[in-house]
Amino acid sequence: MKNNGNTFGNNFSVTTFGESHGVALGCVIDGCPAGIELTKEMIQKALNRRRPGVTPDGKLNASVTARTEADEVEILSGVFNDRTTGTPIALEVRNTSQHSGDYGNLDLTFRPGHADYTYDIKYQGNRDYRGGGRSSGRETLARVAAGAVASQILAKYGIKVTAYTIRAAGISAEKRDLSQIEENALRAPDNEAAAKMNARIEELRAAGDSAGGVIECLVTGCPAGLGQPVFDKLDAQLAKAMLSIGAVKGFEIGDGFAAADSLGSQNNDSMHAEGGRPVFDSNHAGGVLGGLSSGQDIIFRVAVKPVQSIFKPQQTVRRSGDFGEDGSATYETTDLQIQGRHDICLCPRIVPVVEAMTALVLADFILRDSNVSKIR
Amino acid sequence: MKNNGNTFGNNFSVTTFGESHGVALGCVIDGCPAGIELTKEMIQKALNRRRPGVTPDGKLNASVTARTEADEVEILSGVFNDRTTGTPIALEVRNTSQHSGDYGNLDLTFRPGHADYTYDIKYQGNRDYRGGGRSSGRETLARVAAGAVASQILAKYGIKVTAYTIRAAGISAEKRDLSQIEENALRAPDNEAAAKMNARIEELRAAGDSAGGVIECLVTGCPAGLGQPVFDKLDAQLAKAMLSIGAVKGFEIGDGFAAADSLGSQNNDSMHAEGGRPVFDSNHAGGVLGGLSSGQDIIFRVAVKPVQSIFKPQQTVRRSGDFGEDGSATYETTDLQIQGRHDICLCPRIVPVVEAMTALVLADFILRDSNVSKIR
Amino acid sequence: MKNNGNTFGNNFSVTTFGESHGVALGCVIDGCPAGIELTKEMIQKALNRRRPGVTPDGKLNASVTARTEADEVEILSGVFNDRTTGTPIALEVRNTSQHSGDYGNLDLTFRPGHADYTYDIKYQGNRDYRGGGRSSGRETLARVAAGAVASQILAKYGIKVTAYTIRAAGISAEKRDLSQIEENALRAPDNEAAAKMNARIEELRAAGDSAGGVIECLVTGCPAGLGQPVFDKLDAQLAKAMLSIGAVKGFEIGDGFAAADSLGSQNNDSMHAEGGRPVFDSNHAGGVLGGLSSGQDIIFRVAVKPVQSIFKPQQTVRRSGDFGEDGSATYETTDLQIQGRHDICLCPRIVPVVEAMTALVLADFILRDSNVSKIR
Amino acid sequence: MKNNGNTFGNNFSVTTFGESHGVALGCVIDGCPAGIELTKEMIQKALNRRRPGVTPDGKLNASVTARTEADEVEILSGVFNDRTTGTPIALEVRNTSQHSGDYGNLDLTFRPGHADYTYDIKYQGNRDYRGGGRSSGRETLARVAAGAVASQILAKYGIKVTAYTIRAAGISAEKRDLSQIEENALRAPDNEAAAKMNARIEELRAAGDSAGGVIECLVTGCPAGLGQPVFDKLDAQLAKAMLSIGAVKGFEIGDGFAAADSLGSQNNDSMHAEGGRPVFDSNHAGGVLGGLSSGQDIIFRVAVKPVQSIFKPQQTVRRSGDFGEDGSATYETTDLQIQGRHDICLCPRIVPVVEAMTALVLADFILRDSNVSKIR
Repeated sequence: MKNNGNTFGNNFSVTTFGESHGVALGCVIDGCPAGIELTKEMIQKALNRRRPGVTPDGKLNASVTARTEADEVEILSGVFNDRTTGTPIALEVRNTSQHSGDYGNLDLTFRPGHADYTYDIKYQGNRDYRGGGRSSGRETLARVAAGAVASQILAKYGIKVTAYTIRAAGISAEKRDLSQIEENALRAPDNEAAAKMNARIEELRAAGDSAGGVIECLVTGCPAGLGQPVFDKLDAQLAKAMLSIGAVKGFEIGDGFAAADSLGSQNNDSMHAEGGRPVFDSNHAGGVLGGLSSGQDIIFRVAVKPVQSIFKPQQTVRRSGDFGEDGSATYETTDLQIQGRHDICLCPRIVPVVEAMTALVLADFILRDSNVSKIR
Repeated sequence: MKNNGNTFGNNFSVTTFGESHGVALGCVIDGCPAGIELTKEMIQKALNRRRPGVTPDGKLNASVTARTEADEVEILSGVFNDRTTGTPIALEVRNTSQHSGDYGNLDLTFRPGHADYTYDIKYQGNRDYRGGGRSSGRETLARVAAGAVASQILAKYGIKVTAYTIRAAGISAEKRDLSQIEENALRAPDNEAAAKMNARIEELRAAGDSAGGVIECLVTGCPAGLGQPVFDKLDAQLAKAMLSIGAVKGFEIGDGFAAADSLGSQNNDSMHAEGGRPVFDSNHAGGVLGGLSSGQDIIFRVAVKPVQSIFKPQQTVRRSGDFGEDGSATYETTDLQIQGRHDICLCPRIVPVVEAMTALVLADFILRDSNVSKIR
Repeated sequence: MKNNGNTFGNNFSVTTFGESHGVALGCVIDGCPAGIELTKEMIQKALNRRRPGVTPDGKLNASVTARTEADEVEILSGVFNDRTTGTPIALEVRNTSQHSGDYGNLDLTFRPGHADYTYDIKYQGNRDYRGGGRSSGRETLARVAAGAVASQILAKYGIKVTAYTIRAAGISAEKRDLSQIEENALRAPDNEAAAKMNARIEELRAAGDSAGGVIECLVTGCPAGLGQPVFDKLDAQLAKAMLSIGAVKGFEIGDGFAAADSLGSQNNDSMHAEGGRPVFDSNHAGGVLGGLSSGQDIIFRVAVKPVQSIFKPQQTVRRSGDFGEDGSATYETTDLQIQGRHDICLCPRIVPVVEAMTALVLADFILRDSNVSKIR
Repeated sequence: MKNNGNTFGNNFSVTTFGESHGVALGCVIDGCPAGIELTKEMIQKALNRRRPGVTPDGKLNASVTARTEADEVEILSGVFNDRTTGTPIALEVRNTSQHSGDYGNLDLTFRPGHADYTYDIKYQGNRDYRGGGRSSGRETLARVAAGAVASQILAKYGIKVTAYTIRAAGISAEKRDLSQIEENALRAPDNEAAAKMNARIEELRAAGDSAGGVIECLVTGCPAGLGQPVFDKLDAQLAKAMLSIGAVKGFEIGDGFAAADSLGSQNNDSMHAEGGRPVFDSNHAGGVLGGLSSGQDIIFRVAVKPVQSIFKPQQTVRRSGDFGEDGSATYETTDLQIQGRHDICLCPRIVPVVEAMTALVLADFILRDSNVSKIR
């Protein structure tokens, strides 16, 4: 079985590695220009933001799991005197707080909604089942670390990426006050709505259930012309980047699915000139035209499914023997009660991952397009 | 300015070329296994299905443009005695029916909703503006041709890809009768709904406006384990493939955005065993778990925006000079009245493109995974 | 069987297609910057230079085959008003002068020294055996066409690539007078030596035998810093490019194999400063240090084996049945007398191919390195 | 400045990282099939073989440097219960024995023959100059570790790769007794010749000078059909792999440069059938025909230049200021006396690197070709 899907990006190219309960997780970034300022602290700050069980104000986050690790990053290569050297940047986070014993019964029993069953078939039983192994959400740690490096490139162009929860557990944010995002445990741009989301999440926790939500991402300061026709369109790469995040089930840009019900006369973003500069009269497109950034804000949304690990008994199957020559096996029905403490709603933890993946997409396109003014 | 976005797929790798009003469009497929039966007729049949202005029953399609070309494909290489040889398969369709004169005023004036403005900036005015050039929907012709080759591989595994319009101009299909898809001009699985869609589209045509819609795609017979963690997940590649189609603004798989409001206990697809074989009790996931096919049907939907070329006067900008050293230019406000005959709703023409791109994704993953039983 | 080896270059990326006796040969170039001047005549001129049977002065070339085709190139896409648009450039040459009948007996009989046997096994008998099919030297036509485009990029930097025959049929050029290269049929920088080479080649022709030789390539004007550590070193990519040419069996750069017998004190190229500029005291390295161009002339040599198609009877094998399930077949001993008219020494025809592949390598590295001053 | 040259292989894909005096060196292997047996010991054994200063019999190796580090490898991911899981395999070796102080004067002064000058220009002074940084021979440690994993795949097919020194310091091996390779400090297949090589090397050491040599590599058991036309030919990839090793200046396969003086009637390897199986009568081609393995032994040679670090005073330049906006700088002439203890002849240490890179090439092609019988 071949793999080869663990690299993202062509020119700013990130290869990630690591399992939830293995020795370490990390990534190698190949293609980062030389001369970019980069310190361990810059990356650590991003990692801290995605840590489980910690709210922006440092309290226990009601919506997320309590596994608390230091998640301390180490820069192994590619940086000298706090500047990148143009050589591969290897980043590593050692696993320190694994409770592998929690997963002893999951070697052949497949948790519903998880990747256990499909990994087991694909890799014919060769699988680190502890904590989901490679399919664990913990894998996104490497993405966030790489995203922190990409952000250093974006900063040189004045590009800013901000994601936030606009819906969780069935409750929507009523406003987009970006200053409130880090003030509530949901990372919603609306503290009041966040309080309601949190209350609903606590009800679901008590009921042993879980919730999903919707995350929106806003990119400001992006120059026009990023993206590569016809397959590597900016929105196509963003869609791939988002759907590559475990719990994401949908992506839409600009008006998205609502555009399907719109008319051409409504949906077209007309333009006019002001002082010789082109100005769009609206942004139904979400900042992308023909797969290229238009210079407007880029706005897209992703659908996050409810956390799969719930505390209600579930029915599933257990593989009852080895795989045969033809790659098939036999299974038996079994009941499953998931142990341990888990997230109830992933949205606040996925917010930094959405930002990181967006940064990776944009940094890659910047380096693929020499028309963008040079970094140095 | 670099490009390099015109190849799709790693192992079944398709590079497309061509502009709407250039000499020819086509593609080179590298990585198709040897020994696959392939004739010109197989590809031509697929191309005929995407031709503009022709309904499945051979009548003029109300919803689409009247530019009618033969779109005759020629196999230039890679096939000998009606079998692939493992060498690159080059396919070519010559352009024969261009009315380039229609576009004479569009060299510096940018049609709202189109890629004209962004291409002009990215390529600094080096642009074949006729009919949108490379950004024309006509580019999908090469995708459909390549998809026909990919389908020959899928057929060996019993994989079947079927797309259809489930919503257009604000009207939804009420059923999924796949036998009706080719019986109506909308390619909807519901002849009655299709008639209503068509009526609404005629109203919009009279009003000089246009409509969007939603296309669903169903894949049956797909084995478990296709897809490559963690970035090249099956759903991630499908999302990229779909968003790479010009008019597509959203993608969702399984319950998609509805999953965001679901509970874990509702959304998890539990399993049981029947005769030693694993059986899913539902398919909220849409056939993909952890980025790998689960063996269930794969179901996803894409949002199609309304056609940009409308017959109402629109305000836009016109570039009034050459690009400067810094890559910027000056613009002036202008009015635009688009000429010629255009589509009103793209859905029926995008249906074969959705199928083709899906086939490219699946064929690629089959060749990336040696665990799938061999073709020969 | 997967293929996928028909693309060269990462950023200036060329995918070739076509068989010796198929419909057409050609290539798609993805990644050529927009705004480069490009006409059919520029490419045609390069193709004419590699045509068989024609000496620089228009006479029949003694050393090469008499198959004379127009080899007329057509630009299918990517160029508008004689300038590249940044979209894929498809180039095509139709085959017009095939004598397929000459190869009727070669469907199952494998010519010694040719790729017939290995292609037959790899593709399990799915093979266009006419004229060697994909493995024919005629495939290099697409490389030369692409190289002509790459040369337009190099010209903007003042980079010049010149290859020439320094040894053929056992006779060496005694000087490097580049002005004489196109004055003799061997493309040697020494007309007198060329006359001797030609005389020896005529003897071999009369004897039904063939000869090899050595080609040297000189690159002037290359800026320092091209190449990408650690695997895509400039010399590593040049070596790959050269060995990818059918008849090439060796590559050496700078002192090459002679460096193996040298001492460090002899082989190191010391430096001094002149007016603040660094100057090398010698060029044993051949213009590449640590895989990066040093700013000196790049000099390398390739070994060309004798033409495989000789007119003496040869012993070989013939496949006597179909391939079995396990991929093997049975063979029988047979005698072979090759028909038709063939090259005696490939050197003069490989000279333009060496130049083209070198141009592809350099153009790719230029586009991979934003430190090189911009084209526009 | 973009980089992106630190990955080797398409399907068995290795990305290396690390500098000579940084925190760690290592690699991530993406694409290794699941189910392959792999332990730390297997990799450690390969690494021990390339350690400096140690002969096969455990004594100090006269020809190589005395920097002795444990070079202990750690498997960070991708292996569970001593079997690969199909997920990325990250390998890491921490640097423990750096004497960075030795290099304090080399931040702006460039050692002749080294990559110092070209890296400095390419990365505009952003360079870890200690021990050559990324351009150090120590980088090959990651290649050898990855090669040990690739070897586990080759072993399943009975493919064996053996490299050895056939010439060093001007003295040639007179025989090919592979059993003697690990019996002498030169890794020559001829103990007597090795003794002479060693004696000459000691003379050069005393004189403060250094030597080069030639390494040959033999691959047995390789099935026919490996390699991918037309650019990724087996010999083309081998040539790239070899030239990507720092000190290598030439590559030849089979008769190599000698083929240039051969006749077609001598150089063609004729065939006959024995018991229905094809048998070659000679192996002038070196086991590759048309870029595909022929089933014969693969034999190639590489030229190794003399060690650049010599103990004689050398003239070089020193950069005397920062780089300007245009990427240029000013330099002054200076004298250099290299400090520390260094290799005199690299051949014995490059032998394992040649083997490792060959294993990477072959494992990659095996995974690219589904015609090879499956691993599981």
